[in-house]
Amino acid sequence: MNLSFTKMQGLGNDFIVLDGVRQTLSLDTETVQRLGDRHFGIGFDQLLLVEPPADLAHDFRYRIFNSSGEEVEQCGNGARCFARFVHDQGLTTKTEIAVETARGVIYPKLEANGEVTVDMGPPALLPAEVPFVADADAVIHPLEVGGRSVDITVVSMGNPHAVQVVDDVDTELVQTLGPLIERHARFPRKVNAGFMQIVGRDEIRLRVYERGAGETLACGTGACAAVVAGIRRGLLGDTVRVHTRGGDLTIRWQGSDAPVLMTGPAVTVFQGHIQI
Amino acid sequence: MNLSFTKMQGLGNDFIVLDGVRQTLSLDTETVQRLGDRHFGIGFDQLLLVEPPADLAHDFRYRIFNSSGEEVEQCGNGARCFARFVHDQGLTTKTEIAVETARGVIYPKLEANGEVTVDMGPPALLPAEVPFVADADAVIHPLEVGGRSVDITVVSMGNPHAVQVVDDVDTELVQTLGPLIERHARFPRKVNAGFMQIVGRDEIRLRVYERGAGETLACGTGACAAVVAGIRRGLLGDTVRVHTRGGDLTIRWQGSDAPVLMTGPAVTVFQGHIQI
Repeated sequence: MNLSFTKMQGLGNDFIVLDGVRQTLSLDTETVQRLGDRHFGIGFDQLLLVEPPADLAHDFRYRIFNSSGEEVEQCGNGARCFARFVHDQGLTTKTEIAVETARGVIYPKLEANGEVTVDMGPPALLPAEVPFVADADAVIHPLEVGGRSVDITVVSMGNPHAVQVVDDVDTELVQTLGPLIERHARFPRKVNAGFMQIVGRDEIRLRVYERGAGETLACGTGACAAVVAGIRRGLLGDTVRVHTRGGDLTIRWQGSDAPVLMTGPAVTVFQGHIQI
Repeated sequence: MNLSFTKMQGLGNDFIVLDGVRQTLSLDTETVQRLGDRHFGIGFDQLLLVEPPADLAHDFRYRIFNSSGEEVEQCGNGARCFARFVHDQGLTTKTEIAVETARGVIYPKLEANGEVTVDMGPPALLPAEVPFVADADAVIHPLEVGGRSVDITVVSMGNPHAVQVVDDVDTELVQTLGPLIERHARFPRKVNAGFMQIVGRDEIRLRVYERGAGETLACGTGACAAVVAGIRRGLLGDTVRVHTRGGDLTIRWQGSDAPVLMTGPAVTVFQGHIQI
C-alpha cells in the first residue's frame, strides 16, 4: 500500500505520525523497523499511530512504537505532536482532546500559540518512590560523588531524577559528574542527572544526563523534575520557562499532589508517502 | 517555497534528490544543513541536485552537498541514485546519461534490472600513487601490524586502500586490525582497510574499515579496490559479485588501465515535500 505519513518533532525528538482513522493500517514489527531505519527507511525516534477510540466517550486511541518495533508507553514530546497532528489534519476541531493510551486517558490541550500542554501527572517525592537510598525524606540530600559532595533533590516523574543547581549550565560537570550520578549506588534503578541554572524565579537553563542515553537535546520529564525540585527548594515560582538545547518548555506545578503541566512546541517537518 | 524531494538509498548510503530542472532552487548552506538534520529536518548522507547542463552536449549537471552544507565531489552510490532518479522522474529516456560533475563528465548507465553501472575510473597501483611507503612495487606487501605480519595489496581508487584476504570475514580483525592499519605509519595519508573473503572466482564477501569513519555498511571504492587486488593476486575473474553488509555490488575490471565498472542498486525510499 501507499502509506501517507507526517514527520514531526518536539524539541528535536522526532516522530512519524500515521492516520489510522481514515486509512486501515496493520503494522507488523518488521515494517516498523524498516520505516524507522534512518538510511533504508524514513527514520524516527518513535512512530505515533492515531486510531479510533475503544470507548466513544474519548476522541482517539494513541499507540507508540520505538524504531525497534516495540510498543511503548507515552512520551511527552510525542503527545504534543499527536495533538497538533489530529488538529492540523482536521480529525478533530477540539482543542482539548481525550486520548486513550497504554497508560490511561490523557488530555493534551492545544494552546492559542500552537504549542501543546500535556498533563505529566503528579511527581513522586519520597526517596523510596524514586527509588533513592536515604535515611529520611528531605528536600536536599548530600550525595558523595567524584570526590565531592553535591546537593541533590530527588524526584520521580515515572522515571527517577536527581537535580542539582549549578552556577552555569555550560559546564563540564554534565559530562564528568553525569555518568557517575547516573550509576551511583544510592540509585538502585539508576537515575537521570539534571543540572539546573537558575536565571530567575520563572526561568531556568537545564541540561540532563539521561539514564542509558547520555545527554540528549531535551528531556521532558527532566524539565518537570527540575522545576519541581526548584519549587521545593524555594527558588522558583509555579510557572517556569525551561531552556534546553533542543528548545524551550514551560512547566507549571501547584505543589504536592497537583499534576505537572508541560507546554511546548510540536512542529510539522514534512509530509511524505512510502510504499509498504 | 514548497520543495518536492525524493529520498533514495544505495547500499544504505542515503540521499535526498532534488529536481532543479523543473523547479528553480537556490539552496544556501543553512538550508542544506537544516534539511540534512535527521531530527529537525529530513536527514541524509548527501543531497543530490539535478540541474540543466552547462554544455548542451551533456544531459544534466549534478551537484552533491554533504549534510554540513559543503559541496563535495562525486560518490558512486549517489551517482547510481542520480541515474535512477532522472529516469524514474521522466527527465530523460536515455539509459546512458552524460552528467557534468565537479570532477568531470560521468556516464552512469541504467541496466535492464534497474541497477545502475558507474565508471569508477582506472585504479592506481604504484605505492607512491596510493600513497604507501615501500622499497619496490609488488602485488603483495607484508605489513607489520598488531604484533603480526599481514599480506596486503595496495590500490588507489582516488582514495587509498589496503586489502587483505581472510578465511572468514565475520571476524574481530576488522575492529582490532582495522584501526591499526588505517593509521599505520607506512600510509602517510591513512588508508581504508579492506578484509576480503574469497567465496569463488566470481564472488567475495567484504568488510571495510573506512578512513576517518570506521566500519560502514558499504564502501563502493572499497569494493572496487578489493576486486582489483583479488584479480592482481590471481584469485578472481574479471567480473565479481561483492557481498557487503549494506547489500551487493558487481565489480568488473579488465586489468591495467581499464576503468573499474561498479554495478549496484539504487532504491527510491519515499517521496516528500517540505516548506523551506
